[in-house]
Amino acid sequence: MALSNLAIDSDRLLSRLKQLGEIGRDGDGRLVRLAASDADKAGRDRFVAWAREAGLAVKVDRVGNIFALWTESENAHEAPLMLGSHIDTVIDAGIYDGCYGVLAGLEVIATLKEARLTPKRPLVVAAFTNEEGVRFSPDMMGSLAFAGGITVDEALAARGTDGKLLGEELARIGYAGSDDVARPAAYIELHIEQGPVLEREGIAIGAVENLQGISWQRITLEGVANHAGTTPMAMRHDAGFAAASVITFLYERAKASASGTVATVGTIAFEPNAINVIPARSIFTIDLRDPDETSLKSHEQALADYLNALEGITVSVERLARFEPVIFDQGLVREIGAAAKARGHTVRRMTSGAGHDAQMLARIAPAAMIFVPSIGGISHNPKEFTPDADLIAGANVLLDVVRTLSIR
Amino acid sequence: MALSNLAIDSDRLLSRLKQLGEIGRDGDGRLVRLAASDADKAGRDRFVAWAREAGLAVKVDRVGNIFALWTESENAHEAPLMLGSHIDTVIDAGIYDGCYGVLAGLEVIATLKEARLTPKRPLVVAAFTNEEGVRFSPDMMGSLAFAGGITVDEALAARGTDGKLLGEELARIGYAGSDDVARPAAYIELHIEQGPVLEREGIAIGAVENLQGISWQRITLEGVANHAGTTPMAMRHDAGFAAASVITFLYERAKASASGTVATVGTIAFEPNAINVIPARSIFTIDLRDPDETSLKSHEQALADYLNALEGITVSVERLARFEPVIFDQGLVREIGAAAKARGHTVRRMTSGAGHDAQMLARIAPAAMIFVPSIGGISHNPKEFTPDADLIAGANVLLDVVRTLSIR
Repeated sequence: MALSNLAIDSDRLLSRLKQLGEIGRDGDGRLVRLAASDADKAGRDRFVAWAREAGLAVKVDRVGNIFALWTESENAHEAPLMLGSHIDTVIDAGIYDGCYGVLAGLEVIATLKEARLTPKRPLVVAAFTNEEGVRFSPDMMGSLAFAGGITVDEALAARGTDGKLLGEELARIGYAGSDDVARPAAYIELHIEQGPVLEREGIAIGAVENLQGISWQRITLEGVANHAGTTPMAMRHDAGFAAASVITFLYERAKASASGTVATVGTIAFEPNAINVIPARSIFTIDLRDPDETSLKSHEQALADYLNALEGITVSVERLARFEPVIFDQGLVREIGAAAKARGHTVRRMTSGAGHDAQMLARIAPAAMIFVPSIGGISHNPKEFTPDADLIAGANVLLDVVRTLSIR
Repeated sequence: MALSNLAIDSDRLLSRLKQLGEIGRDGDGRLVRLAASDADKAGRDRFVAWAREAGLAVKVDRVGNIFALWTESENAHEAPLMLGSHIDTVIDAGIYDGCYGVLAGLEVIATLKEARLTPKRPLVVAAFTNEEGVRFSPDMMGSLAFAGGITVDEALAARGTDGKLLGEELARIGYAGSDDVARPAAYIELHIEQGPVLEREGIAIGAVENLQGISWQRITLEGVANHAGTTPMAMRHDAGFAAASVITFLYERAKASASGTVATVGTIAFEPNAINVIPARSIFTIDLRDPDETSLKSHEQALADYLNALEGITVSVERLARFEPVIFDQGLVREIGAAAKARGHTVRRMTSGAGHDAQMLARIAPAAMIFVPSIGGISHNPKEFTPDADLIAGANVLLDVVRTLSIR
């Protein structure tokens, strides 16, 4: 069968996306399928049913990751090619984030299986536990544990925002497994972009070559509260103005960066927060991301230098999170680009600004991601949307890449 | 009697300041003597008792302003020389703000009366109603009504933060008077600086020549919320960064101003206020003060121009308050400077950064103020403090100025 003649069943994929998106609606109609909740169990059960319908074997490991495998006797000794993502959601989520990658992976495997093509290695689609990290910390937990970044016991001991233990919750919903799954030969994750670049540039497919490093800090600046009218500018220790100058400095630096740096101050508070009192204290967070570790470090250092140079202001810095950038496998990225072009799609190499399970799998296997457009760049929101044509295009590109890697 | 031989009774003044400062303590020991409250009544009663003890006539007008008058038959037809301030306080106040000016005014009149000097015009000390404006709006209400800036009926209809009407509360505490007091020939207010300038410069007496104009605005900037990781800097409409740039612009302008401009952003909020979401909205207040109306207007215009030039940001501006600067009477300011020097004190001309009853009296009579140092510039706080020697010095300067204006 020629490549051009094989395609996923788009109606089945789109229908399943919608069906899964209806599971976990709360009383206000919001999609809330937090990890290891009753809603998550219902979503998992549906995915497992569809995997079994496709004739796949279902395994669940100790942290609740679900793996749907297609293994033939002639390839059982080979390391599998793994697809996947997650089906847990944030609060008031859209229906695409994560679920698209899991269901498209299942669709790709089912399509190849139905076409009676025999891959040279097992194909597996994974639904990783607690990618969103809303109920349990850290996020991307299931893939992190699978890649050996935390122990299974550490993961199971995670206490949720509701006080419950992940291990007990997984057991309660019937997903505390004991299966082992072999280290994959490669990992490919298909995902919505969750950013505006593809839509703005009118490009159908993103071949994701790297993933930004993340530096999260909370900064507290302490000055002196004083009367807004009676304190001359030269005698002030204004923690609010100091915060504004730090923000301005950091943003101008990020804007001028050639490496794709992004800087965000999303939260801020002044104390005492009165119109006619000079702020004694300002507290704000810094979200700094960069695909290049050297560049990220230089921005962190410049920020630290700037903070240390603030006169008459006491500075406290709390590090909240730090991840190094991830470089995806260049061979896989090339295959994605070639497959997209062969299908007649526009394609660009790009950086992932968000964290994904793929960054954890990259620790143990060649990994890459495929992005499709997010309208308006909106995600983690019921307005999250990707047109059907783009969803279908992305899944067919994944199909072709998997076929190239495992069959031809 | 030579000027140098006359001085106020410092023990009496300091003792009364402390006594008045004990009236209106709440269960936590905080000084809370809000306008027209039971605590205010107790403070007023004490002041009236001291005034009567000095042989002064007490009058109360329709908005509850108390006037203690020393009138002799030979000067009864003359316009009075008025001293004064207020005895209402903020919540958790210090003991000096306002009370010092009222009690020192009483002390000056009593000293001259006890010295059997006969002034060429009546001397009166006023305690104006609701200067602080904590319970009822606007602040400086009693002096504003006395100067004709609002009608008595408007003042009495003011509703307090507790829902009660000022008119009813004044009647309840026995201070809804009906007396008329003549327009004064001049008004002098002695006050603590409430700022750091005199202490920092080691100067004993401030001859206050003007009072800053005040411009209060609330600014709302609206951008677009987006993912902090996936939205390139060039595609952002970051309402938080825009706020920081406005603050930085305004502060640098105020710092560079030659006219004594002060700018304060005391309150701020971002929405949605999440570490990894670009702020969709920022809301902050601007407190801009300047002793020069032309300069104040130019700063307001520069701010408006800067806001209008923000790209991709929707701007809303709400004007919260606007007062023009007040120029005090240069002749009175010269007398204050001369009196301070004659007493051997260091003295400087200065601007009041805070609002005072004197600014309302300046509408109807030559007016000026005398400042004494506030340690650390602290006010509206139990730590508010002025050393006894400075309190005595200020009261004696007031004595000499009054004597010069009314007796020699």
